Amino acid sequence: MATKDSKAFVKDITPMEEDFAQWYTDVIRKTDLVDYSPVKGFMVIKPYGYALWENIQQFLDRRFKETGHENCYFPLLIPESLLNKEKEHVEGFAPEVAWVTHGGSEPLGERLCVRPTSETIICSMYSKWLTSYRELPYLYNQWCSVVRWEKATRPFLRTSEFLWQEGHTLHETAEEAQKETLQMLDIYREMAEDLLAIPMVVGRKSDREKFAGAEATYTIEALMHDGKALQSGTSHNLAQHFTKAFDITYQGRNGDLENPHHTSWGASTRLIGGVIMVHGDNRGLVLPPRLAPIQVVIVPIAQKKPGVLERAEALKNELIAAGIRVKLDDSTSNSPGWKFNEYEMKGVPLRVEIGPRDIENGVAMVARRDNHVKESYALEGFAAQMQTLLDQVHGDMLERARASRDEKTFTFETYEEFKQKMAETPGFAKTMWCGDEACEANVKADTGVTIRCIPFEQENLGDTCPFCGKPAKEMVYMAKAY
Amino acid sequence: MATKDSKAFVKDITPMEEDFAQWYTDVIRKTDLVDYSPVKGFMVIKPYGYALWENIQQFLDRRFKETGHENCYFPLLIPESLLNKEKEHVEGFAPEVAWVTHGGSEPLGERLCVRPTSETIICSMYSKWLTSYRELPYLYNQWCSVVRWEKATRPFLRTSEFLWQEGHTLHETAEEAQKETLQMLDIYREMAEDLLAIPMVVGRKSDREKFAGAEATYTIEALMHDGKALQSGTSHNLAQHFTKAFDITYQGRNGDLENPHHTSWGASTRLIGGVIMVHGDNRGLVLPPRLAPIQVVIVPIAQKKPGVLERAEALKNELIAAGIRVKLDDSTSNSPGWKFNEYEMKGVPLRVEIGPRDIENGVAMVARRDNHVKESYALEGFAAQMQTLLDQVHGDMLERARASRDEKTFTFETYEEFKQKMAETPGFAKTMWCGDEACEANVKADTGVTIRCIPFEQENLGDTCPFCGKPAKEMVYMAKAY
Repeated sequence: MATKDSKAFVKDITPMEEDFAQWYTDVIRKTDLVDYSPVKGFMVIKPYGYALWENIQQFLDRRFKETGHENCYFPLLIPESLLNKEKEHVEGFAPEVAWVTHGGSEPLGERLCVRPTSETIICSMYSKWLTSYRELPYLYNQWCSVVRWEKATRPFLRTSEFLWQEGHTLHETAEEAQKETLQMLDIYREMAEDLLAIPMVVGRKSDREKFAGAEATYTIEALMHDGKALQSGTSHNLAQHFTKAFDITYQGRNGDLENPHHTSWGASTRLIGGVIMVHGDNRGLVLPPRLAPIQVVIVPIAQKKPGVLERAEALKNELIAAGIRVKLDDSTSNSPGWKFNEYEMKGVPLRVEIGPRDIENGVAMVARRDNHVKESYALEGFAAQMQTLLDQVHGDMLERARASRDEKTFTFETYEEFKQKMAETPGFAKTMWCGDEACEANVKADTGVTIRCIPFEQENLGDTCPFCGKPAKEMVYMAKAY
Repeated sequence: MATKDSKAFVKDITPMEEDFAQWYTDVIRKTDLVDYSPVKGFMVIKPYGYALWENIQQFLDRRFKETGHENCYFPLLIPESLLNKEKEHVEGFAPEVAWVTHGGSEPLGERLCVRPTSETIICSMYSKWLTSYRELPYLYNQWCSVVRWEKATRPFLRTSEFLWQEGHTLHETAEEAQKETLQMLDIYREMAEDLLAIPMVVGRKSDREKFAGAEATYTIEALMHDGKALQSGTSHNLAQHFTKAFDITYQGRNGDLENPHHTSWGASTRLIGGVIMVHGDNRGLVLPPRLAPIQVVIVPIAQKKPGVLERAEALKNELIAAGIRVKLDDSTSNSPGWKFNEYEMKGVPLRVEIGPRDIENGVAMVARRDNHVKESYALEGFAAQMQTLLDQVHGDMLERARASRDEKTFTFETYEEFKQKMAETPGFAKTMWCGDEACEANVKADTGVTIRCIPFEQENLGDTCPFCGKPAKEMVYMAKAY
């Protein structure tokens, strides 16, 4: 028999309907994911937050290796002269880098920037290494932190330092580079759906929004509870822009010197912000089961009664043996009610309650965090049932997020209607677009809304651009974005 | 029937007897572990080198978690005012930090150093977080890179940036902090022996050699082929030095405000240098099996003959299924002889040769990298035999390294004899010591030799300090060091 579990909302979390930004900050602080550091814009990732990142790392690292990539590590500091080599790249990044000017007590001959991304230093090495087409492709990735000096920061979403991975590959042909670019984008989409339970719109960035130095940037875009979009991973086809600027050449099959084709792709701790804003509610975090550091918490009821703790401990070991991440909270300083609130706030997918009467009946009560449904389950074969239930929670969370996104996705006839909808019920606007950068810039200046992507799945919604009246070129997703 | 395999030495590696430093550099370059970057003193860790680090990380991370530690991440940049708070610490580190003075185009109000180690930034956060004894212990670790501006650098051993982990814990009592300090030291020793096959001398640093700001530093010390020691991991009991300087307090059991007791401990990519210099030979790397990215390489012989590649592929899959890291090199551009040399140089523990006649006889030839013994093994139950053999190689390498270290460990009667032996057959000198810092400083100034550690396993070698004639206090290991 399923019942709705009706605990009072956890105090101190501002309801999201009231103030979404404050809700986000409250959730992050109350659940101990991060803290602010003494350096403005730099955050400390606390163990519960870092464990989320470790699970994302593990998923991506496995998929990178399965697709033939190897990890390596390039220096943290990049000479200014290297940063300057690719014109568009330096224009994009120079305004937001941190500069090292002294080593010990001595001024440096040339200043070094703390890497904002590593195309330039990596290309300088590739240029030294590559000699023949036989060595291609280069399929390398690195896990590291990068620094981009930001004026306004928010934990996970925009910080002056963040953790990420950056892949940097070289290929013999343009076709291979394009295939790689799309393959890695698809791994990001797969990770978002299979691990984070977040559905993504997948497509190409407009030229205005692409990476500084890229031929084309591809992106996965998620929609948050508040109707704003979050760019969640990008994959760039860099063509020969950098390989020419850095004079990376190799002897091709026919003996000529060639420039290889180049890609880069990255995903970062920002994904954690997405998880919070897609799944969270007014009680706190709601973590998708495969990402959750604790998947099941066991709360013993009347734990001083004989046999309760022993049975709870046995249940814990059964779940651990089945590969489930479980915590038994048998602390005596807090009541079961306090524990219920605490683990709800922390987003633990399943809470198991087990007391003397349950044990007598050979059952335990299991409360789902995602939909608050509470049901009793037989203790016999408990771990297998929990595995099934965790998968079901994952599937339900993904579908709920998809439904919520679709509900917030709209079409419109006129620019006025667009502005009104974006103001009243913000979300993804699907629209035809003329393809003109000036038109795109006008809309952004006027409304703050940007083209999030030109989706691979195109629909024909009409013949003209509703913003400027010119003939339509392609369909785009637009939104305000983090 | 065992035979000695007698390939000619790989060209281009200088024999270690001729020039050990050049041998080291040659091995590292020829085996593609690292490369020099455009920034002096900063190295690029290439995939084959990074894979070694990943295996070290995996071992340590598992052991840290098994002993209750959690990972987190603290900022890369530390305000100068924080670095200055602990007097001995800033004196130790300020001369070798990189300073960030500009963010984007604007000068910073206070300069920030790139972390050389994170005690100060972490203590500033602990001071904000800790309130009650109930929250103790704090058992946190982070994986990151650190920067220490070095004048003379060598790949892995001393570089201006290196990768490491740093654990930072807080405890209620001095006893708990001491227990933690020694527990983590023992995990380093275990990793060195069980993963790297390197025996360690374990003990305490002299006050002169301890970490800047520590009450006591403990160390594991290895001896290299050339008789120089390598400090391979350190664990510091920081007592209340930092917790007082950073005003970290909590309400104790009896209601008073207390300062917690503090430890930190770290191990770095320098360990890879140790592996090279303990196990390597004039053909190149010799990797201990549990660390090796490739544990078994299969080289097919006469691979165009029918059935050879199919059988080699089946063997590969059998080994993979048994959890062995294996590579089948079926490239046609290189001869088997070239491949033999290549994988010997790269230190792959086992080479499997399989050709038409072997298949007919139901066997494969297996050559061990560590002792050059080549024997034939039945194809039936091959994977299980290889697992046993890999363990045996590990054990033999550890014992060989121990024997080599013991052979290079000497005692002596007089200072003159010490100097002579250290010059002619350098290694560990075991000796009594007066415990006087001035005496220690004199020996270092005179000979370049330092006290590596005061070993836990003390022996009574006499009553007087052979350097100054004063009464002996304790036994120490001395050596020249990297």
